Parts: sequence; structure tokens; C-alpha cells
Amino acid sequence: MESEKPDLDYFGIFSGISETIVTTTKVSLPNAAPIGIIRKDNKVLVRLFKGSQTYENVYEGNFLVANVVNNPLIFVRSTFSDLDTSYFDVISLEDREFPVLNDALSWVAFECSSTKITSEALVAELNPIFACLNRCVVSAPNRGFNAVLEATVHATRYRLTGDDEYLKLIQMYARLAVKCGNERDKLAMEMLYDFLGL
Amino acid sequence: MESEKPDLDYFGIFSGISETIVTTTKVSLPNAAPIGIIRKDNKVLVRLFKGSQTYENVYEGNFLVANVVNNPLIFVRSTFSDLDTSYFDVISLEDREFPVLNDALSWVAFECSSTKITSEALVAELNPIFACLNRCVVSAPNRGFNAVLEATVHATRYRLTGDDEYLKLIQMYARLAVKCGNERDKLAMEMLYDFLGL
Repeated sequence: MESEKPDLDYFGIFSGISETIVTTTKVSLPNAAPIGIIRKDNKVLVRLFKGSQTYENVYEGNFLVANVVNNPLIFVRSTFSDLDTSYFDVISLEDREFPVLNDALSWVAFECSSTKITSEALVAELNPIFACLNRCVVSAPNRGFNAVLEATVHATRYRLTGDDEYLKLIQMYARLAVKCGNERDKLAMEMLYDFLGL
Repeated sequence: MESEKPDLDYFGIFSGISETIVTTTKVSLPNAAPIGIIRKDNKVLVRLFKGSQTYENVYEGNFLVANVVNNPLIFVRSTFSDLDTSYFDVISLEDREFPVLNDALSWVAFECSSTKITSEALVAELNPIFACLNRCVVSAPNRGFNAVLEATVHATRYRLTGDDEYLKLIQMYARLAVKCGNERDKLAMEMLYDFLGL
């Protein structure tokens, strides 16, 4: 575990938008949700939409953990449901106690600053304060895993709008997961269909 | 470097279809092309379409190297052009000499067996004989990088057919690369547009 301004590259948070699982807490109750961490030049930002538990926890606590995860089941499950406590470890560091995912390849804990609140969302700058690399896994890109991520994004939009365009994209990605994915990717896509009631 | 039946998981070739850059050679001339390596149960397979240099080299040499790469520029460049020799290292091992990519995170060299030739393609079983892990990089998924891969797949189809459906998909992925990708992903997408003459 590193506590001197962690090197984000080393912990898997590169330029662009990193698709992570953000863990937060409120009165010891851990929460997890898929959130993009935006890194541009020397700034790291997050945008959280009002109404989510992550928004509420960050609004109150000014703290979040970005977990780097390669497990498609966690992306789908945390999008549509609350992860039960078995998914979390609790870390105690310098008077802080916070939840991380025990399946994370790595995680980075951030303090939030310069938080701006709009009518729809909260945008905060993120300052890394702790980080941990649990295990390093080399993996060739897999279009099936990638398809699960895309389907998850479009599934949240589909649930909000009911727009058939999103459904068509979800179906396109489901075919890709079956063609290119491994068993876990296929199971994640089945789980996504179940959550959508398809 | 490992020479006793390498553990494919360790070198980044998991179940499902791994998107790798396959390097082959013919009379010392190295070639590179993006190829999916199919791993299912305990079998590893490759399907190569007639007319490609990779097909010809594997047909004659029964040997290929799958390079695990996280550089989007190499995916695009090797799809549409020949990589110049600066991209390659030459490995000499047990009477064999073969090219690998010097930017690969890892590579696995395979001998081909049970090769079947159809009117369109060659399908071979792959037996790993050498492998090398150059560096381990943890990286959160990035939808921009993934979009470059998808666009590359659809770009090859677009070049073959001229079908506007593929062009629309390429445009969708270009927007995603701009929104979520890093500088290298955006550059790769620009390069793809140049290769297509768009």
C-alpha cells in the first residue's frame, strides 16, 4: 500500500476515462457503483449524478475509492443492485476507514476537492491519497468482455428511457459476448438480461 | 522466457477470443496482423483467411506468435499496412528464429497442428512452445481503447463491402474514442480514418 501521492499509471488509472467500480460508505454501509474516473493533463475528476447513493456519500464524505476490476459480473451486478458485504474489504488507514472491493486488481483512494454542484450532478477534483496493487494480470483484449461494459452503459440508458435504439445496441453486444467472450462474460450478459427483465 | 508448455493464463491468453497481433515470418521477412486466438476448454485454435500474408506464412511454416498488445496504434497500423522492421525483435530459440513485437506486454509462440484447409480459410490447433512476459501493466478498462478495436474490425468489413452500416458503426466508435480515450486512442482513430480515406 502506498500513501505518498500514488502514481496513478502504476495503479491502472491512465489518461482518458477509466471505467472503475467506485466504493463509498455512509455510516459503515459500503456501496459500489460503476463510475468513470476522468484523467486529463494533471487533473483527475469525477462526475456523479444526483439521486445515486454514490452522489450522496461523496457529497457528505468527500472521499471515494476507484477500484480497477476485470470481472464483468461485478460491473453488471453493481450497476443494477447492491453488492452484498462479502464483496468488500474494509481498510483502516490514518484515522480513515473505507471499503474496497476484495476482487480489485488495484484501488486508489481519493479525497475530493473543488466540488461543484449543478442541478443534475456533482463534479469534484480527485486527489489520490492511498493506493494498493493487489495483483497484476496481463490480458489480451477480449471483445466479449468489452461488449459487457458497453451493454451495461446502454442498459442504464434503456431503463431510463425505454428507447429501442438502446435495446438494439444491447442485443448487438450480447451477440458479441457470446461470440468472443469467456464463460464469465456470457454469464454477465445473461445476468444483465435478467436485470432488464428481457 | 518459458519453454515448458507455457501457462496461457499467465501470458494473457484467456478463454474466449483474445485479440492479439500475430507475427509470422517468411524468408526472414517479418509480418504482423491482428488475429483472434480462440481458446475453448483445453484447445487453442486460429482461423486465418486465404489471401493474407499470415495465412501464407502459417501454411508454409506451421508456426506463429501471438503478441499481447495494449497499444491502439499497433492494432490500426497492422490492420491496414505493413509494420516496418523497427517494430520487431527477432528471437532465436532452439534452432528457431522468429519475430515478435518489441512493444508486446507478452507473447506466446505456437506450433500449428491438425491444420484444416477449407475453400476460404485455414483452421489450425495451436500448441504453445515458448512464451515471454515483458511487463505487467494493470489498466482500468477504457471504452475509448475498446472503441478503436471495434472500429478496426468494422473498418476491414467496410473496405471489403462498402456497406454504410459499417461506416455508421465506425463513426459511433470514433465518437466514443474522442469522449473516453486518451491521446493515443484518438490518434489511432484518426489514423484509421486516414487509412479509409475518410
